[in-house]
Amino acid sequence: AGNVEAGKAKSAVCAACHGQNGIAQIPMYANLAGQHEQYLVSALKAYRSKERNGGMAAIMQGQAASLSDEDIANLAAYYASLPAGGK
Amino acid sequence: AGNVEAGKAKSAVCAACHGQNGIAQIPMYANLAGQHEQYLVSALKAYRSKERNGGMAAIMQGQAASLSDEDIANLAAYYASLPAGGK
Repeated sequence: AGNVEAGKAKSAVCAACHGQNGIAQIPMYANLAGQHEQYLVSALKAYRSKERNGGMAAIMQGQAASLSDEDIANLAAYYASLPAGGK
Repeated sequence: AGNVEAGKAKSAVCAACHGQNGIAQIPMYANLAGQHEQYLVSALKAYRSKERNGGMAAIMQGQAASLSDEDIANLAAYYASLPAGGK
């Protein structure tokens, strides 16, 4: 499992679209707060490998391109740790 | 925007993986409760068009194949209406 603190440290760029609390202010972007860690790992890897297309995927493919497996694990742990709904 | 009641009526098959309350009991599947409606529409359409691959996408491609644009709008409205975190 990933490291929440390391994920938080890595998450600054994510917050621009997905919100400081993991709740996206722009409704075309996904809320991440309280999402399952395993699903987040899977989604980030699918963006990194460019298997996940459609919607706004091109943005995420670019963002995920530079993430290591460890970065992905840490980011997933961090967003899974945030309270769902941003409360 | 979609119709919440029509979406609920269509959601029985979704609940098998995504939970009766939109919280997936299996951590490789996404929680949907309280997710942004617009994002859910985008994701479902990307599965239906088979643009979204990777992870468990093959399952969702099959599920989404038979959904109309109206079905997608209604399902998105329904899951967006559920309380985040399943509470």
